[in-house]
Amino acid sequence: MTTPLVGILMGSKNDWETMRAASDALTELQIPHESKVISAHRTPARHHEYVSSAKDRGIKTIIAGAGMAAHLAGVTAALTTLPVFGVPLKGGLSDGLDSLLATVQMPGGVPVGTLAVGRAGAKNAALLSAAVLALSDPSLDARLVAYRESMSAAVPTEPE
Amino acid sequence: MTTPLVGILMGSKNDWETMRAASDALTELQIPHESKVISAHRTPARHHEYVSSAKDRGIKTIIAGAGMAAHLAGVTAALTTLPVFGVPLKGGLSDGLDSLLATVQMPGGVPVGTLAVGRAGAKNAALLSAAVLALSDPSLDARLVAYRESMSAAVPTEPE
Amino acid sequence: MTTPLVGILMGSKNDWETMRAASDALTELQIPHESKVISAHRTPARHHEYVSSAKDRGIKTIIAGAGMAAHLAGVTAALTTLPVFGVPLKGGLSDGLDSLLATVQMPGGVPVGTLAVGRAGAKNAALLSAAVLALSDPSLDARLVAYRESMSAAVPTEPE
Amino acid sequence: MTTPLVGILMGSKNDWETMRAASDALTELQIPHESKVISAHRTPARHHEYVSSAKDRGIKTIIAGAGMAAHLAGVTAALTTLPVFGVPLKGGLSDGLDSLLATVQMPGGVPVGTLAVGRAGAKNAALLSAAVLALSDPSLDARLVAYRESMSAAVPTEPE
Amino acid sequence: MTTPLVGILMGSKNDWETMRAASDALTELQIPHESKVISAHRTPARHHEYVSSAKDRGIKTIIAGAGMAAHLAGVTAALTTLPVFGVPLKGGLSDGLDSLLATVQMPGGVPVGTLAVGRAGAKNAALLSAAVLALSDPSLDARLVAYRESMSAAVPTEPE
Amino acid sequence: MTTPLVGILMGSKNDWETMRAASDALTELQIPHESKVISAHRTPARHHEYVSSAKDRGIKTIIAGAGMAAHLAGVTAALTTLPVFGVPLKGGLSDGLDSLLATVQMPGGVPVGTLAVGRAGAKNAALLSAAVLALSDPSLDARLVAYRESMSAAVPTEPE
Amino acid sequence: MTTPLVGILMGSKNDWETMRAASDALTELQIPHESKVISAHRTPARHHEYVSSAKDRGIKTIIAGAGMAAHLAGVTAALTTLPVFGVPLKGGLSDGLDSLLATVQMPGGVPVGTLAVGRAGAKNAALLSAAVLALSDPSLDARLVAYRESMSAAVPTEPE
Amino acid sequence: MTTPLVGILMGSKNDWETMRAASDALTELQIPHESKVISAHRTPARHHEYVSSAKDRGIKTIIAGAGMAAHLAGVTAALTTLPVFGVPLKGGLSDGLDSLLATVQMPGGVPVGTLAVGRAGAKNAALLSAAVLALSDPSLDARLVAYRESMSAAVPTEPE
Repeated sequence: MTTPLVGILMGSKNDWETMRAASDALTELQIPHESKVISAHRTPARHHEYVSSAKDRGIKTIIAGAGMAAHLAGVTAALTTLPVFGVPLKGGLSDGLDSLLATVQMPGGVPVGTLAVGRAGAKNAALLSAAVLALSDPSLDARLVAYRESMSAAVPTEPE
Repeated sequence: MTTPLVGILMGSKNDWETMRAASDALTELQIPHESKVISAHRTPARHHEYVSSAKDRGIKTIIAGAGMAAHLAGVTAALTTLPVFGVPLKGGLSDGLDSLLATVQMPGGVPVGTLAVGRAGAKNAALLSAAVLALSDPSLDARLVAYRESMSAAVPTEPE
Repeated sequence: MTTPLVGILMGSKNDWETMRAASDALTELQIPHESKVISAHRTPARHHEYVSSAKDRGIKTIIAGAGMAAHLAGVTAALTTLPVFGVPLKGGLSDGLDSLLATVQMPGGVPVGTLAVGRAGAKNAALLSAAVLALSDPSLDARLVAYRESMSAAVPTEPE
Repeated sequence: MTTPLVGILMGSKNDWETMRAASDALTELQIPHESKVISAHRTPARHHEYVSSAKDRGIKTIIAGAGMAAHLAGVTAALTTLPVFGVPLKGGLSDGLDSLLATVQMPGGVPVGTLAVGRAGAKNAALLSAAVLALSDPSLDARLVAYRESMSAAVPTEPE
Repeated sequence: MTTPLVGILMGSKNDWETMRAASDALTELQIPHESKVISAHRTPARHHEYVSSAKDRGIKTIIAGAGMAAHLAGVTAALTTLPVFGVPLKGGLSDGLDSLLATVQMPGGVPVGTLAVGRAGAKNAALLSAAVLALSDPSLDARLVAYRESMSAAVPTEPE
Repeated sequence: MTTPLVGILMGSKNDWETMRAASDALTELQIPHESKVISAHRTPARHHEYVSSAKDRGIKTIIAGAGMAAHLAGVTAALTTLPVFGVPLKGGLSDGLDSLLATVQMPGGVPVGTLAVGRAGAKNAALLSAAVLALSDPSLDARLVAYRESMSAAVPTEPE
Repeated sequence: MTTPLVGILMGSKNDWETMRAASDALTELQIPHESKVISAHRTPARHHEYVSSAKDRGIKTIIAGAGMAAHLAGVTAALTTLPVFGVPLKGGLSDGLDSLLATVQMPGGVPVGTLAVGRAGAKNAALLSAAVLALSDPSLDARLVAYRESMSAAVPTEPE
Repeated sequence: MTTPLVGILMGSKNDWETMRAASDALTELQIPHESKVISAHRTPARHHEYVSSAKDRGIKTIIAGAGMAAHLAGVTAALTTLPVFGVPLKGGLSDGLDSLLATVQMPGGVPVGTLAVGRAGAKNAALLSAAVLALSDPSLDARLVAYRESMSAAVPTEPE
């Protein structure tokens, strides 16, 4: 079995509907990963255990998706020096403005690279993880470049 | 020495300028308390230790003041069933709107009673702690009622 | 009949759909409570009478849910020194940003512990009331700890 | 002594700096008025007494200026059928967005005519009161028309 | 035929669905009124004619409902010294935050008494007009007081 | 004397400090223009006269700068089919968010091309007017291209 | 075949539903135009080619519609001195507030004339382009004036 | 001379005051880097050249800081598959809310990992770059872990 390189965390099982976009993109780019429901608020012990051991288990980047007072990415970043990418989720105020601010406005010293609210952000967290992994994996780099070119080519010129 | 009943936490030493208002109000109401700099992001181990042991050490309520992606109150509430009161601090966006949303928008199951942004909120977190403690301390209840009456009486009728 | 320990107030009968979450949580934790429709704006006399007499009738905490220019929690706090917890409700602007600000931004001296907008907030107002009551009720404290553990255990690890 | 026709209320003595603009405009239009510091939160009894007796004392309109969770205008409107005009004051979030929303977003049945945040709003609350009084006072109507014409004439055409 | 005392203006026929609440409340209080579709942007000449002649035709207050860059109330107030009440309508950004700001943030000198966004605001603009007219109409004042008492009595105490 | 091609309007003499940036850029590009203080609210007659006659007087584009409930650009666009460019000014809420929304959120049928809040917007309103005029003035087009190239060249590569 | 005078760009084929309003208005005013799907992010090369060659191909104004971090109009303006009009689209936060700010808040030197969010903005971008073209096309000017008059006449006076 | 691994871009020389925090952190962690003033809007050719050649020149991550309609990070990400980290800068609306939204709300396919507004974000963009580089540089990983521990140790426990 392949060791996962990316850990996708989400605060609630309901978040899977959105975070699946991260898993799908990683799968498409052939990047081993795992997805877990871990809440910073409801399962703090599970969170501590997962994040503390992540680096030793071979995880390279962690993607954390959460809504409202979205602390998941931030407290993950507090427990590891691995790159942490946060995906704010809708469900609270103003289509996710609350979770965006709660994810991105980290104090100096503990970074969270934050993506857009919702599915676009989940997908991009995967692509950003791929970009990171591609720095030391030429084969993945080639796949990523191809993915991007394929995406460009798929944009039609005519609107109708 | 008196055992502290209220723990005032703040994410940075700079927050003391604001959080001092909580300490001052508790002092005025003769409520033993302690103030600590503990960051959810920069000192997660210290945070875990303080909050996990708080109930056993006799702490009754915890006041947590933090700014920006203000996770301090939320992750405190995740580790204890004691009442946790959050004070959003200025310094980020829109005079503290970011820290307000990051503090108050907690998911169902892990409550944070949130006060106003800044000094008014810090003072009120102390008064709300006093109201909680007064439920089982008639003497404090009397002091709290007197405090409120004194506050009313101090409001002048004429604006100039 | 058991004397209610928590009073749940709401500005309109329509708010019951949301505020029921507070009542349900209190029921689950076996905390006697009562729910009343009382509007700060449309029934000010009823409000004054309820709040002024609450402490003498044995009420320990008051939960107030209201939307838009949500004054209910604030004017409740103005009339009592009991702990008051505010629940902002949706229906106005930006999914409840208006009621959140109108509830939480209280001036120094008159605290309202504010919870999240909507059902999560209503549930958490009940849990925060439970946390307050548990300070002098070891049996409730045990139930509250068990409630929290049960909640943690109910979070699945796998998203699908 | 002339009976005041307009009552200017403000939640704190500090608000006078802004609310003075209302008083000044009423003075300029020769409208008898009075200014009082009355807080919905800190002096609820004083507030109840003032507003309940206002109509009998000859007050025609009430101007209420308050900041943050600005409930003053709303709870005033709850206690009288006189026209109530609210002036949101700065000091909280986003230059007064919090007090604006807390003043204007009143539920159906209890109107507050809300003006702009700050001094412009205070001045306009006075002019709106003047417009109301002018409906049954032809002399005041003439003064108000002249005031407006004078204001127009005072706008220079050239910017420098 | 009775001369209308209140003019209800709206920027588009689609706004009638909301503004009808103003008309209904005026009808219930037996206040003669008229409702017109007049856009500050699309029919400026019609607007100028209506507002310039309003006072002479016996109109006492003007209610203006508009959405988005809601200029209708403001440019109405620019052309008359009659009391103008603005009703911001939904349809643009953040449930009407755009029209609220465009209506209420008038510069000093030209007041618009602004009500809540949407139907609650439309109803309240009518009630505020009634409050203004009642100052010189004891019979209407009695009806208004009765209306308010009836509204209070209609609020049920029990939520279910 | 050269006939002005661009009219710069502003709601108050105080706005000149910002709107001067529009005049300066037009001067630099050798475009004849005039600047006038004309308020949609305080001098509606002056506004009507200026805008109604603008096309006949040879004006090609109108730049309108205003703050708060910034109606100036919108009501200008309502009275002419000339291109109207709006510049929202600071002074109200959230650094000009109110004037931005009041300027840009025009209903279908009456366009206002809106620029950024403040000086950057004022300058760009001039450059956009220049771009419009350059469509039928090859010499101006050449000056505009040179202006842009010169701007690019003036950006230093090294930050210090 | 007629050379297009206006280029309508949109970041995604899905945007056509909204941007069609621009095309429809141009068609109604008999202005030759073309519509293209060109993304600043997904097809940067296609974008560079289109915009760089636009002036030489006879394009007079470019309309760019995009959502979220709506860069399309801005990077278009960076590559041409033609007038660029931006249409923010919904789909992100707060009904398009994100795309509005990303479109309008351009730095001094590179103007984007921004219209309202969504269909109203798309239609108005077309009308603004028409206003620009009409400056040197008397026949179009007449059609535009007639369009406006027809629009005014179509507004019914009675709301029901 | 050491080949830079990180490229720090900023839209204006004035941004250096903030972006210097990124450079300082990289220097402290002994990571070779370069800082350039490159504007997406004012120097698009320079931008295209820098970003297109970055990967070949050995750059591993790009940090882009910009304000207002902050397109710099987004258009950078459009031209490379390297990890791009965006730093929103203050100067526009609401303390940088405009630049935050313009940076983070990228569409699916073209990721920008966004940090907090201002200096905290600039510092964290450097630390996140360090975290990325540390994945294949054990020595840097050790320095990064030490940096974090040192940061924790430097937080005082007592607020005064």
